Amino acid sequence: MLSKAQIKYIQSLRLKKYRQKSGRFLAEGIKVVDELLKQDYITVEEVYALPDWIAQYHHDNTVYPGLRPVEVPAELLSRISALHTAQPVIALCQIPSVDEETIEPAQITLMLESIRDPGNLGTLIRIADWFGIPQIICSPDCADAFNPRTVQASMGSIGRVRVIERLLGPFLEAQGISPVYAATLQGVDIREVPALKGGVLLIGNESRGLSDDMLKHATHQITIPRIGKAESLNAAIAAGIICGRLLL
Amino acid sequence: MLSKAQIKYIQSLRLKKYRQKSGRFLAEGIKVVDELLKQDYITVEEVYALPDWIAQYHHDNTVYPGLRPVEVPAELLSRISALHTAQPVIALCQIPSVDEETIEPAQITLMLESIRDPGNLGTLIRIADWFGIPQIICSPDCADAFNPRTVQASMGSIGRVRVIERLLGPFLEAQGISPVYAATLQGVDIREVPALKGGVLLIGNESRGLSDDMLKHATHQITIPRIGKAESLNAAIAAGIICGRLLL
Repeated sequence: MLSKAQIKYIQSLRLKKYRQKSGRFLAEGIKVVDELLKQDYITVEEVYALPDWIAQYHHDNTVYPGLRPVEVPAELLSRISALHTAQPVIALCQIPSVDEETIEPAQITLMLESIRDPGNLGTLIRIADWFGIPQIICSPDCADAFNPRTVQASMGSIGRVRVIERLLGPFLEAQGISPVYAATLQGVDIREVPALKGGVLLIGNESRGLSDDMLKHATHQITIPRIGKAESLNAAIAAGIICGRLLL
Repeated sequence: MLSKAQIKYIQSLRLKKYRQKSGRFLAEGIKVVDELLKQDYITVEEVYALPDWIAQYHHDNTVYPGLRPVEVPAELLSRISALHTAQPVIALCQIPSVDEETIEPAQITLMLESIRDPGNLGTLIRIADWFGIPQIICSPDCADAFNPRTVQASMGSIGRVRVIERLLGPFLEAQGISPVYAATLQGVDIREVPALKGGVLLIGNESRGLSDDMLKHATHQITIPRIGKAESLNAAIAAGIICGRLLL
């Protein structure tokens, strides 16, 4: 079982300031926890689970060898859960430390300005993982990559994609990376853009798109042509479509 | 102001059964209401708005000529809102009647099996609108197209794309439409699939994908190649990527 202090500590991780202070975050759900237990980039420290989850996934210690999950009743699990709908299992994980300032120019970097919705950010991490993009640079006003909703929407991809928070402009200048492709509504038709081999793909805020300041750093502006009448596309959908055309 | 009975009526529209009974639904938010007021497919019957919204958008009756919004205070607006975060304006709209059973084979139809999340469905409606897909057929166990969260995620595209609920298999058989492209994880690489000129694009449930029953109706199975390690993509992202390759 969990002590009062432990419960309070786990609940505190709903807030970014306590995640940063402790260097820990929560991952919830069977699929997400499974993915995190099977990778090496992020360390899982504790697993809190319903008896049902333990019976199904840990009865003979073979699925996750060495794991010692803490069995908690449903009422307590939903109290420590940060999600609207509590999941049968919650993992307490270490936020990976990022000491490296350089990014690999031979690989694609996804750069996000002011993506505010944690679900959108998680979906973008999952897209990056699908297309083999190893790193995402987020502006400081993006949703937090270790927000429980981001982690859930990433479906475990948070365990494979490195997400770093930086001031985007200074970072780009310091790194001197090129080309920088910016997704806008008035760029070159993506059908006319050759496949990307490296550099940065820049995606902007859900409603406002990219700021003028960021656009100054773009070497190319690219656009998904519109056949119908929707005024815009969701930021994650736009990123997916661009990756589907330019990274395949 | 609103009477108690009106408030109760508006609140009842959070539930599908009352939406179906009354043939009405709610659309919330500045952008969504703006889009609905500017189109003809869906009739907006009433608009409930904060004084601020009225001051900004209706002070001289030119943005929405003829509209007579009902001014409501913030406390009341958040009581009638069906969303977690109340918006400054809510529209009461008629669910459009669909008497036509046929679909146009020269145009693309998006067909959705068991898309359960209202936000995903709204995003799919927005994608259809962007790519000029005029109609979506949903299985009866999909989220409701007129759920307040679906309407909001569609960003007004619900006013341009016809969304119909049908039993998919019988519908496909009765219509005799071909080709039927099913998005799966073991189909032909989308890079090898020629651009679609008509027919059906079939997208399955968020976790399970398409059922074996539906796959029997597919003439082609198509797959987004994976470069990285994510096990799957969000259903709406997958649909967006496929549209970006095969409809452009």
